[in-house]
Amino acid sequence: MKPVGPIPAGFAGPSRLMVGGVDFAELLERAGDTPAFLYDGAALAARVARLRAALPEAVRVHYAIKANPHRDVLAAMAGMVDGLDVASGGELAMALAVKPAAAISFAGPGKRDDELAAAITAGATLHVESEGEADRALAVGDRLGRTPRIAVRVNPDFELRGSGMRMGGRASPFGIDAARVPALVKRLVAVGADWHGFHIFAGSQTLDSAAISEAQAATLALAERLAEEAGAVPAFINLGGGFGIPYFAGDTPVDVEGVGQALGEALARRRAVLAETGFAVELGRWLVGEAGVYCTRVVDVKESGGETFVVVDGGLHHQLAASGNFGTVVRRNYPVAVAERMDAAPVMTASVVGCLCTPLDRLADRVALPAVAVGDTIVLFQAGAYGATASPAAFLGHPPARELFVAKDG
Amino acid sequence: MKPVGPIPAGFAGPSRLMVGGVDFAELLERAGDTPAFLYDGAALAARVARLRAALPEAVRVHYAIKANPHRDVLAAMAGMVDGLDVASGGELAMALAVKPAAAISFAGPGKRDDELAAAITAGATLHVESEGEADRALAVGDRLGRTPRIAVRVNPDFELRGSGMRMGGRASPFGIDAARVPALVKRLVAVGADWHGFHIFAGSQTLDSAAISEAQAATLALAERLAEEAGAVPAFINLGGGFGIPYFAGDTPVDVEGVGQALGEALARRRAVLAETGFAVELGRWLVGEAGVYCTRVVDVKESGGETFVVVDGGLHHQLAASGNFGTVVRRNYPVAVAERMDAAPVMTASVVGCLCTPLDRLADRVALPAVAVGDTIVLFQAGAYGATASPAAFLGHPPARELFVAKDG
Repeated sequence: MKPVGPIPAGFAGPSRLMVGGVDFAELLERAGDTPAFLYDGAALAARVARLRAALPEAVRVHYAIKANPHRDVLAAMAGMVDGLDVASGGELAMALAVKPAAAISFAGPGKRDDELAAAITAGATLHVESEGEADRALAVGDRLGRTPRIAVRVNPDFELRGSGMRMGGRASPFGIDAARVPALVKRLVAVGADWHGFHIFAGSQTLDSAAISEAQAATLALAERLAEEAGAVPAFINLGGGFGIPYFAGDTPVDVEGVGQALGEALARRRAVLAETGFAVELGRWLVGEAGVYCTRVVDVKESGGETFVVVDGGLHHQLAASGNFGTVVRRNYPVAVAERMDAAPVMTASVVGCLCTPLDRLADRVALPAVAVGDTIVLFQAGAYGATASPAAFLGHPPARELFVAKDG
Repeated sequence: MKPVGPIPAGFAGPSRLMVGGVDFAELLERAGDTPAFLYDGAALAARVARLRAALPEAVRVHYAIKANPHRDVLAAMAGMVDGLDVASGGELAMALAVKPAAAISFAGPGKRDDELAAAITAGATLHVESEGEADRALAVGDRLGRTPRIAVRVNPDFELRGSGMRMGGRASPFGIDAARVPALVKRLVAVGADWHGFHIFAGSQTLDSAAISEAQAATLALAERLAEEAGAVPAFINLGGGFGIPYFAGDTPVDVEGVGQALGEALARRRAVLAETGFAVELGRWLVGEAGVYCTRVVDVKESGGETFVVVDGGLHHQLAASGNFGTVVRRNYPVAVAERMDAAPVMTASVVGCLCTPLDRLADRVALPAVAVGDTIVLFQAGAYGATASPAAFLGHPPARELFVAKDG
């Protein structure tokens, strides 16, 4: 038997899965069919509120929509956060539908000219990732007769310790090496671009609160140094995010309150060059990941070689990361339960496998489960971020997952 | 510098990428934009012809459409092969549009009742994966007043050596453990089902020709034993496939002619119970994988930490496997080239990264490349199988890849 991750709070009724206070069976009926993602609007609101309470008042909250761009999730988040961060022309269009351009910033290493033009035309902030991209943005702006609003994404000279994905501290496709940033800022200011500040992102998906605080302090120090060297005051600094959520056994959540307090102390110590600067943290996974579950129905329960397989109508085509095939080295189990019997004692060890005809499609590997029959519902937690859109939905020709947003009032 | 896999034959003009004898630039214009998959119809035809020439005449060729279900690829393959194998209700519908139901079989561990009903109604062959699924198929057939045509998928008691994905020889979600198969066959025959035979699949993506021949001989021996124990003559045996293609440096292709000869010898030795049985091999990747390339345009060339990054407008959202994030443990480089300068000498070491804002999106890691400029075209080979549909197309909101089929006449 292998361990599973911790089930987040707020989903267990007396014995059945509840999402936003509503029984899952009713929600699946609303969704139309399994497999389905269910997103809890109240949980999203609680998450944003907790973050706001923890952060210094001056620090704005941005949502990285790549984590979950579902229409209703995005609309709900747009109404609660200060800014939206996008990573493609497609995401830009989605964000513009729900938020003013001035609150939207566009990062990403491979922006095409047509994407630059869309952002400049709309008036969103471009986070340029190289000197070459800055030049292309200026050229596109000239062509359009618009002054591009440009923040410089910095490849910091440190990295976020304990990060699942390091994005700084070494050769990187993201941002411009810190040492070259002051020269670029000077040039942007000289040519009359609307230079907006810095975007410094050290890594993502860490649960190490001390490491996050350390990275934020280092980010501030780096921004001070770069601004002083450039001789320019940044209007805005995106401090990045990187807060993870607990997927696996033994994981503990980020101490957001502690991180907020340390950030407040670091900001209080900041040097004069940043006195008038605005700040934001940019979070995706932490804001929406725990608010979503993935429900999939049991199609078969079979024995083979002395092991039990629970075969479901969903799979890695909707929840690739849970299968351990996206950005993970060692396969570990996400939290999983039987939605009809959340409190039932386990009676067997079984693997939950998806409906795809590939051995990669294993959603839970040799976990303890209560009795399971065909027609029961398996629920995978921590499915609110990087689920539906981060999975190969067309693989093997199955239908896409249904997605249902449960509004705060149920 | 890290090595890349071998570029398959047939794509190099004097100096530029050619697909089906046509310059890639003309094809990208036809496709409309990059990123684009280009599929070479003549290469597909040559592949099928080579396989038919290598195999004993009696062995039919089936195409596993999951490898590439693009409309035009599927139509071309349907016209050349004897049968289509599908893995979902969605694939079944695609296959029925281009091939009679009698030539279609449906395998997969999580078939829902609505999928069983669709197959039974159409008259396709169901490859049942458990006793429970067999019972469900019979029940659905009763309800529909139709006798289901059922083959039994066997979890063999051996596995394909050197297989990238083992699908036999141990506890498995696929098929029914060999020891339990005779009892199920007896039962199917007794209740009057149209029992069609066996489907025995030992693994996939191996380049070890001796291992394939060994598995085929073992498959025949197992089928003989199961048929004799069941006291029933199988009309048909799907011998599986498993032929890989060379993705990485040092990989050598399968000796298809040798495999065909060994299969002929094994069939000549088969026992009486299989004398009237029909046989097929089921291939996906081997038939279509080498016939496709993925073209993506250079958006930026940047330096960071002393390394060079070639940033392209495509990425893992179209070619997940090439990024090393799907079913591989160690990341290795697929064959890659600059389409404008296939014969140019390398002048630098660079990584090709996609446009996605994640460090996972690396299509080639520190490879030798000729000079590359913004606007050039990077081509990834071996992209005809498990590309567009096996990648998270919606991730980060970029458009889907274009797909263009180049017919045999150009």
